Amino acid sequence: MNELSEKVLAGNIRAASRLIRNLEDQIPDTDQAMREIFSATGHAHVIGLTGAPGAGKSTLADELIAAFRKSNQTVGMLAVDPTSPFTGGAILGDRIRMLRHAEDPGVFIRSLATRGAMGGLSKAVGEGIHVMEALGKEKIIVETCGVGQQEVDIINHAHTVVVVLVPGMGDEVQAIKAGLMEIADIFVINKADRDGAGKLYQEVLNLVAMPRESGDGSGAGWTIPVLKVESILEPDKFVQSVAALWGKIEEHYQFLIKSRRFSDRVRRKRMAELNEALWARILQPVLNKLSQAGEMEKMVDQLMSKETDPYTLAEQVAQRYMKE
Amino acid sequence: MNELSEKVLAGNIRAASRLIRNLEDQIPDTDQAMREIFSATGHAHVIGLTGAPGAGKSTLADELIAAFRKSNQTVGMLAVDPTSPFTGGAILGDRIRMLRHAEDPGVFIRSLATRGAMGGLSKAVGEGIHVMEALGKEKIIVETCGVGQQEVDIINHAHTVVVVLVPGMGDEVQAIKAGLMEIADIFVINKADRDGAGKLYQEVLNLVAMPRESGDGSGAGWTIPVLKVESILEPDKFVQSVAALWGKIEEHYQFLIKSRRFSDRVRRKRMAELNEALWARILQPVLNKLSQAGEMEKMVDQLMSKETDPYTLAEQVAQRYMKE
Repeated sequence: MNELSEKVLAGNIRAASRLIRNLEDQIPDTDQAMREIFSATGHAHVIGLTGAPGAGKSTLADELIAAFRKSNQTVGMLAVDPTSPFTGGAILGDRIRMLRHAEDPGVFIRSLATRGAMGGLSKAVGEGIHVMEALGKEKIIVETCGVGQQEVDIINHAHTVVVVLVPGMGDEVQAIKAGLMEIADIFVINKADRDGAGKLYQEVLNLVAMPRESGDGSGAGWTIPVLKVESILEPDKFVQSVAALWGKIEEHYQFLIKSRRFSDRVRRKRMAELNEALWARILQPVLNKLSQAGEMEKMVDQLMSKETDPYTLAEQVAQRYMKE
Repeated sequence: MNELSEKVLAGNIRAASRLIRNLEDQIPDTDQAMREIFSATGHAHVIGLTGAPGAGKSTLADELIAAFRKSNQTVGMLAVDPTSPFTGGAILGDRIRMLRHAEDPGVFIRSLATRGAMGGLSKAVGEGIHVMEALGKEKIIVETCGVGQQEVDIINHAHTVVVVLVPGMGDEVQAIKAGLMEIADIFVINKADRDGAGKLYQEVLNLVAMPRESGDGSGAGWTIPVLKVESILEPDKFVQSVAALWGKIEEHYQFLIKSRRFSDRVRRKRMAELNEALWARILQPVLNKLSQAGEMEKMVDQLMSKETDPYTLAEQVAQRYMKE
């Protein structure tokens, strides 16, 4: 057995950090370790925490971790940082996250970013969750931002999805309509002391009351709660409202298990993992070979001179690497 | 020659709409038409308009189109709608967009969404731009939201990137640091009458003044302007400030051409197109075959029972479809 996976399965934090770093850097042999920890995955409750940048997700996650710890649950947290297209690194990764949990062995927090290629980030998130599960964490929070397809892909890895909204962004309801409505299990109106919080709360309540066209039917039987979370400037109220959020997250988890829908969510997650593994094993190696040989650049030269088109080039590459 | 591409090249709007719909629906034979229009692409000025949902991008785009029309430029606009993971459609697509341009033959507006697969949306955007170029449009606006990798991929298709911010979202500067800084050519502080607009303006100015680590060096020599756009509730001021934005966009275009950086941007765009064509020709057909044969579901069953792991499955699929 791979030394790294053995250590992770034994609960070694440094090995887990190293494995996550290897995933981020797309070190080729990481698959072996990931394969070996696979049978230790699938048991944790994964909570997706999503919303626009500036919605206060990190502060919320910090207090949520404290709430989980109060009930003696171990917590893993993956903070997904948008990747910078040019420097290729996670700028937010350097920020000091949640120092108060740093000394607690029951908490494992890492930020995650990947470079370049399409689909890479979501794959790394799925695998980062596996590492945390192998480490024995019971609750895993995945913090991500935005409403793009990439973020929706990431959310496929979660069982309970918490969507965080803040007043003052204008046409919030449009934002919600834009896809968040259908992935949310719980809505949070954060910074609820702000102007417009009451209006936003009411809008979201109305939205939640609308009949839901959920393709997989996994939402049926669950009434999506809308919770207000007070500003951190009022610490007591803040802690109290996050405790209520924690309660709802637990309630959703119990709902999933009792209604046997937990396995539907696990299935969705496994499907995402399979798709991402196929990308990594089929498309990625071709792109790597072309890049290493300088062929990508040569092909772009041909496109610049309009000697040929992308479809013809892709066809040629496919004939070279794919069986009939 | 394909009938559809012939009509598009002759300026037929209905054919262009149909071709874009085919791209969205990923109709298999669309490649042939796209191949035929390829040599008519690469001449338009593509403007990316990005920012969080609710930042007022559509209203801005509407007025920007009017400004382009005043200077007799033809305009295409692609509004990228986040795809809903369950219903698989663009919910925002139905909204009535920019009715006032509906009768103007110099304006072609379409919204765009794609279903499912990773990378599909960005590919459809690149191709939607090609259709608009083939139709003869000189300025093409691509409106997108969010800061995820998917959105950054989309932005690779643009020559001039306008990032729209609004006051009142909390830690805006963090949002900017999260990747937008490095793709912005122009910043807009929208809804500039709001509380906090002055503070945000100053923060962004400070950020812009910081040395920029631009990997491709394509930003050098261009001072990123920060423009305030007034609320539409003050129509005169609004129109005036959008006119100033229009001027800056034109200035950036002239800068790109004079500094010979336009071809760097075109190159970045061609690289994105090639990557997306490779995805469509290599990975996508494998996924389609597996899905049609019901194999995906069977493989997920195997993952559910932990009979095997995603890496092993992907390896087996690769051996079946890939040459050594």
